[in-house]
Amino acid sequence: MVWPNEDYLKLPGSYLFSTVARKQREFSAEHPEAKIIRLSIGDVTQPLAPVIIDALHKAVDEMASAETFKGYAPDLGYEFLRNVISEKDYKARGCDIAPDEIFVSDGAKGDCGNIQEIFARDCKVAVCDPVYPVYVDTNVMAGRTGTYDEKTGTWSDVIYMPCTAANGFAPELPKTVPDLIYLCFPNNPTGATITKDQLQVWVDYANKEGAVIIYDAAYEAYISEENVPHSIYECEGARECAIEIHSFSKNAGFTGVRLGYTVIPKDLKAGNVQLHSLWARRHGTKYNGAPYIIQKAGEAVYTPEGQAQLKEQVAYYMKNAATIREGLAAAGYTVSGGVNAPYIWLQTPDNMTSWEFFDYLLEKANVVGTPGSGFGPSGEHFFRLTAFGSYENTVEAIERIKKM
Amino acid sequence: MVWPNEDYLKLPGSYLFSTVARKQREFSAEHPEAKIIRLSIGDVTQPLAPVIIDALHKAVDEMASAETFKGYAPDLGYEFLRNVISEKDYKARGCDIAPDEIFVSDGAKGDCGNIQEIFARDCKVAVCDPVYPVYVDTNVMAGRTGTYDEKTGTWSDVIYMPCTAANGFAPELPKTVPDLIYLCFPNNPTGATITKDQLQVWVDYANKEGAVIIYDAAYEAYISEENVPHSIYECEGARECAIEIHSFSKNAGFTGVRLGYTVIPKDLKAGNVQLHSLWARRHGTKYNGAPYIIQKAGEAVYTPEGQAQLKEQVAYYMKNAATIREGLAAAGYTVSGGVNAPYIWLQTPDNMTSWEFFDYLLEKANVVGTPGSGFGPSGEHFFRLTAFGSYENTVEAIERIKKM
Repeated sequence: MVWPNEDYLKLPGSYLFSTVARKQREFSAEHPEAKIIRLSIGDVTQPLAPVIIDALHKAVDEMASAETFKGYAPDLGYEFLRNVISEKDYKARGCDIAPDEIFVSDGAKGDCGNIQEIFARDCKVAVCDPVYPVYVDTNVMAGRTGTYDEKTGTWSDVIYMPCTAANGFAPELPKTVPDLIYLCFPNNPTGATITKDQLQVWVDYANKEGAVIIYDAAYEAYISEENVPHSIYECEGARECAIEIHSFSKNAGFTGVRLGYTVIPKDLKAGNVQLHSLWARRHGTKYNGAPYIIQKAGEAVYTPEGQAQLKEQVAYYMKNAATIREGLAAAGYTVSGGVNAPYIWLQTPDNMTSWEFFDYLLEKANVVGTPGSGFGPSGEHFFRLTAFGSYENTVEAIERIKKM
Repeated sequence: MVWPNEDYLKLPGSYLFSTVARKQREFSAEHPEAKIIRLSIGDVTQPLAPVIIDALHKAVDEMASAETFKGYAPDLGYEFLRNVISEKDYKARGCDIAPDEIFVSDGAKGDCGNIQEIFARDCKVAVCDPVYPVYVDTNVMAGRTGTYDEKTGTWSDVIYMPCTAANGFAPELPKTVPDLIYLCFPNNPTGATITKDQLQVWVDYANKEGAVIIYDAAYEAYISEENVPHSIYECEGARECAIEIHSFSKNAGFTGVRLGYTVIPKDLKAGNVQLHSLWARRHGTKYNGAPYIIQKAGEAVYTPEGQAQLKEQVAYYMKNAATIREGLAAAGYTVSGGVNAPYIWLQTPDNMTSWEFFDYLLEKANVVGTPGSGFGPSGEHFFRLTAFGSYENTVEAIERIKKM
């Protein structure tokens, strides 16, 4: 008789953003007149840039004739896209990443979730706390995290690296040595960054301990300050210890278009095994590539027009970030993030729990945000707002919050 | 120190179709003058139907303005698509499948590969032999298959159900009771089908033994004969024991567009657990939905114009199938399949091994096919040709084979 994967049953509640969406739906049903503003999930609102639209139309036309029609994509993704990624995202920044070390995918979420599969089932995982839930939940599903403690909201076999106001939301090296270390900078949810020197410490640590860093660079396009690394491969020795995951969702508004990529340098090994070949095998066996027309849209991102149009789009969202950050600070909130990231991290007032503040904000201001505690125990009493709304809605949301 | 997933290392060689592609590339490099015809991988060659192209252009235009722009898709897929699937693929056939039992995805390959994740790690898997390699390989990666025997090409813990000329390439009920049973009809690679009564036997068996059937219906659109079921839910009791996986790759030419769906009825349980909720959790945690524009293309498939245009496309490929089947039979080959499926399954001449015949065909006729042994030990001395080439190429390939 068939039995389910018991590890799935250990997951407490539902995926964070599904719960947020459900609560919003329920509130809407009860208050159909409320004009809700969502500053919760990291979903973009600006339309695709004209250069992307053009590329999509052209690629669709190619699919209309037998001469230019495209079937299954090459295993790693089309060369035209991998070449330009290698050139613009890496070589132009002094990073030595070859096109055949790049795996094109349908987005960073899937890659973040699936990457753990190529590692031993008993490897020790370290995550920041708070953290993007996908890193932890997918390791729970794989049976790596031990037992859940309802009281503390932590897993017995996960190494948590608290990111708190005290350490500027930058994790310290863990006391127990992990095998796999998930890092995300600019950070989701705190919006914090670390300098290149700080990141070098992690790379050196991983190389010394034989650990692998999974570096989630989804928010790289929002970096505005000098000395904040755009890629972990800017650090010496990262080719021997790091996997980097990229998204087109935030730099190009592809949340509903779906495109991302993962870099696994050929120098990177676990035991004696090239991780590149394991991931290639996974790609070849469980995945059939991102759609051709979407990969063509990705290529357009790197054209000079694409770069110019998307710089404007990022600037639009970063104006929202400044509006939120400055507006909340003026209203007396303690805020961080929002300078090199589209996320603003605020301390809840009056020692409210994160979910209490969620309900309070939804009821009083009809604004939806994301409870910090949903990202981990150190996120309790914090709250995440995102800069991905329209400018008008963002301004109105802040006005409403000020009046609460 | 980090270690790799040891189960990945057990996989012998590379993914079948990657090997076929590599051999073809090598031959091309050595013989640049050879005009190679590929009747190997199940990749389509006809352009997208006009109705699909229109839908794609319209959806792209929607992404160009803030009012109609779409970000992240709903977890299960857009309702407009799930509603029409429920209506046309199920209710119209007397099958009771609700829209919220349908999970839209980026294709059947991923779903076929990922579905095993929601089941216990020690469950017993039964597969047809020969079989689509993804079912077995993804269970190997999950550590379910025991040890590999190089001599027989089989795994110690997999239950093989031989499909041979003797049983008309239809599997018999296994002697050892499995927990998970993979079935694919019309079959890849043999092109065989079973009747509704025969499928009912499997449904009854699964319900009696508490097993789950993973039913891969990717080739359903190619069914031409009466009494061949289009869905396992045509059988009584299937809602309690079956998951069904669908592709848009073969009925609508979406191999490079990427769209599929998986049905998990809410009545289906493993132990006491609704499998629907586990798959929903996986979708929510490791996946971010098929692109909006692709889901709109999927919707167009079900319009009256879409149905008419795609019927023509399927007829085009089935004319190829007849050309191959009849041509090879006339040349003295023993062939089957190609009546309700785009695959022709032929016995190799002179007791050649499948790979010997692969090399022979590539060298003498410059035609690429797929070695039957790549699909399992009972595929040895067989060979798969597909009907997805252009008509002209298919005719020429058969002419060349006849002259060998």
